[in-house]
Amino acid sequence: MSGYNVASQGRAVAAASRLLATASHEVRNAVLLYVADALSVAESEILSANQLDVEAFDDDGPGRDRLLLTAARIASMAEALRTVAALPDPLGEEVEHSVRPNGLEVSKRRVPLGVVGVIYENRPNVTCDVAGLCIKSGNAAFLRGSSSALRTNQVLVSLWHRALRSVGLPPDSVALVTDTSHEVAEAFMRLDESIDCLIPRGGPSLIAAMKRTATVPYVIDGDGNCHVYVDASADLEMALAIVENAKVSRPGVCNAAETLLVHAAVADEFLPALAALLGTVELRVDERAGRILTSARRAETADFENEFLDLVLAVAVVESLDEAIEHVARYGSGHSEAIVTSDALAADAWVRRVDAAAVVVNASTRFVDGGELGLGGEVGISTQKLHARGPMGVRELTCLKWVVRGKGHIR
Amino acid sequence: MSGYNVASQGRAVAAASRLLATASHEVRNAVLLYVADALSVAESEILSANQLDVEAFDDDGPGRDRLLLTAARIASMAEALRTVAALPDPLGEEVEHSVRPNGLEVSKRRVPLGVVGVIYENRPNVTCDVAGLCIKSGNAAFLRGSSSALRTNQVLVSLWHRALRSVGLPPDSVALVTDTSHEVAEAFMRLDESIDCLIPRGGPSLIAAMKRTATVPYVIDGDGNCHVYVDASADLEMALAIVENAKVSRPGVCNAAETLLVHAAVADEFLPALAALLGTVELRVDERAGRILTSARRAETADFENEFLDLVLAVAVVESLDEAIEHVARYGSGHSEAIVTSDALAADAWVRRVDAAAVVVNASTRFVDGGELGLGGEVGISTQKLHARGPMGVRELTCLKWVVRGKGHIR
Repeated sequence: MSGYNVASQGRAVAAASRLLATASHEVRNAVLLYVADALSVAESEILSANQLDVEAFDDDGPGRDRLLLTAARIASMAEALRTVAALPDPLGEEVEHSVRPNGLEVSKRRVPLGVVGVIYENRPNVTCDVAGLCIKSGNAAFLRGSSSALRTNQVLVSLWHRALRSVGLPPDSVALVTDTSHEVAEAFMRLDESIDCLIPRGGPSLIAAMKRTATVPYVIDGDGNCHVYVDASADLEMALAIVENAKVSRPGVCNAAETLLVHAAVADEFLPALAALLGTVELRVDERAGRILTSARRAETADFENEFLDLVLAVAVVESLDEAIEHVARYGSGHSEAIVTSDALAADAWVRRVDAAAVVVNASTRFVDGGELGLGGEVGISTQKLHARGPMGVRELTCLKWVVRGKGHIR
Repeated sequence: MSGYNVASQGRAVAAASRLLATASHEVRNAVLLYVADALSVAESEILSANQLDVEAFDDDGPGRDRLLLTAARIASMAEALRTVAALPDPLGEEVEHSVRPNGLEVSKRRVPLGVVGVIYENRPNVTCDVAGLCIKSGNAAFLRGSSSALRTNQVLVSLWHRALRSVGLPPDSVALVTDTSHEVAEAFMRLDESIDCLIPRGGPSLIAAMKRTATVPYVIDGDGNCHVYVDASADLEMALAIVENAKVSRPGVCNAAETLLVHAAVADEFLPALAALLGTVELRVDERAGRILTSARRAETADFENEFLDLVLAVAVVESLDEAIEHVARYGSGHSEAIVTSDALAADAWVRRVDAAAVVVNASTRFVDGGELGLGGEVGISTQKLHARGPMGVRELTCLKWVVRGKGHIR
């Protein structure tokens, strides 16, 4: 058993969050801008720590690149903080104001959640991005990054501590869990008394552990088994460009397309053109698509159920919009679902009837991203329905508190 | 092991919810109004079933009264449905519309959650109230009531089935779990594939079981350890009326006051007057209050930590507004917290700094209730921060789906 006391750290973070919650917008932004500047001042310190992390990393896969920082990556972390600082204040707004028949004044005020806990993997930029979105929205950031990025994260968090001290806010407003053991991670998931919202950013095993272990309320940043449906009325040139972009531009991310659905009326024309365009992509076809793409590998059920996160695309031919919507309802993960169509009624039916965080018409699923949608960043992409769906920015890190004002009212 | 297949029932409810989600406001309201009428037509059938439930109930405590239906209670269930039907449609609204610099149109649309699961105790009116709020908001209601109310609930749910069939909606849009065993309840809490939101309405043991067992996202309807703080500047007549109302009008409910905090500057005058007014209430006083109310029982820490849900009130004297806020931060359960003050700055500090679902100025905590705040009813009162805080009405049973429209946009 580790001697690390994450519960005691949690209480300090919660105490810090109460002071932070009433800090002015100017003060919160000053913290972000301080860190944006400090990132460039401390560049060599950050790169040295990162070099130690990278050297100790014992895997030559894509994890090493995700862990690696460069001067350009540090500059873009600073730029992201400046973008978030420039956003309007998400706090304080009073909404849904009404006066009840008895004269009671009722409204809701937008306030921080309190303490946001994030469990994430080895991208050190997440440390700065999440801290920035949290401080902007008046929340303390309680960060549990991966052991492989620990040295880098410690340097980054030290910059936040300096920035917080510079404006008289408690440094525990941004806190890093430095014991990255499994036991401490499980204890972290159960810190009901200290953490108000937990966001797991990781693969299916992390999500499963959260569901099994967490007692803190959480928002699932889950899989993106995203579809593009090419309707009978689609502009096929547009459809080719969208499918290519959704699949190829960055196949390893959650908003990449995993399955193509094509209406039977255009499949004979569209599929051969697509196969020619996507030479590097392996297509796995259902029986109807296989009659057109005769040399393609036949898809199994699992190909429609899971993310490939690779240059592989499942393909099915459907007889109708209804069948496409039914396919998405059955296999989709509720992330991003696109239709390509020139029929306004089909577009409207897709928007109304497809149940996903984002429904997309005549655009690539790759736009479902906090930056692209105007949030200035994201703390995760929710695939559940409670609290927030899709990219979570600063507004999604707030909640509404009821404010009831009377003149001695009793019931 | 029970042969009851709650997973299969869940799939049927989820399928029903997909049809329900696109039903018009008129059709959804027609279901509520049909049931409102049917409740009076079926009154004797309901009362007979309820009589069997009550006769089989083996406890003479308050549970028996909660279980009992009367003609008046049935009429008020019908009236509640008519009130909800008269509310504006919570669905369809498009919010946060913007056009990105690249021309992409981005908005959010208010949509149902899907399937709302509610676990509750023996009040049969909850069956109708929850079904009404769910259908109004386009959600299927998946209900797990208590075994003691099973016969009554079955009759009530049959009315919903008739109403749903009358407008061509699937009867599974309102579904009752008729096996009330512990195993089936645990399976219910794990129906991730079918249930989108779980709301437990019950005591601490149900909440603990949810935290331990549930994998479906849930909203906690937790304890109400509510405070009234009487500030140095309070109108003491107003304060007496508010404390009396908050404590005595219905001591067993979650928005009743459990602790009184009094500023030292007015304690000498206020506390004896309060003790005289609240003759039937047992006061449990801290050391400072005990110097004024010398014959009152001394409070223990547990008296400040827990709900009494009875004619008992913990009392503490504080030296300042800060001390009152600190006391609430330490002992409050995040439900409803009231200040009585004539000082606008003190009121503002209370509203800004107290972290609770509802902050109340110069009014009784008893107003924190869906009906009183204008929601037309409530499916529960959330004491967590994610998704919804405080009374949850039809709007809190919705979520926002992103709608992204392009003209062939790719990244």
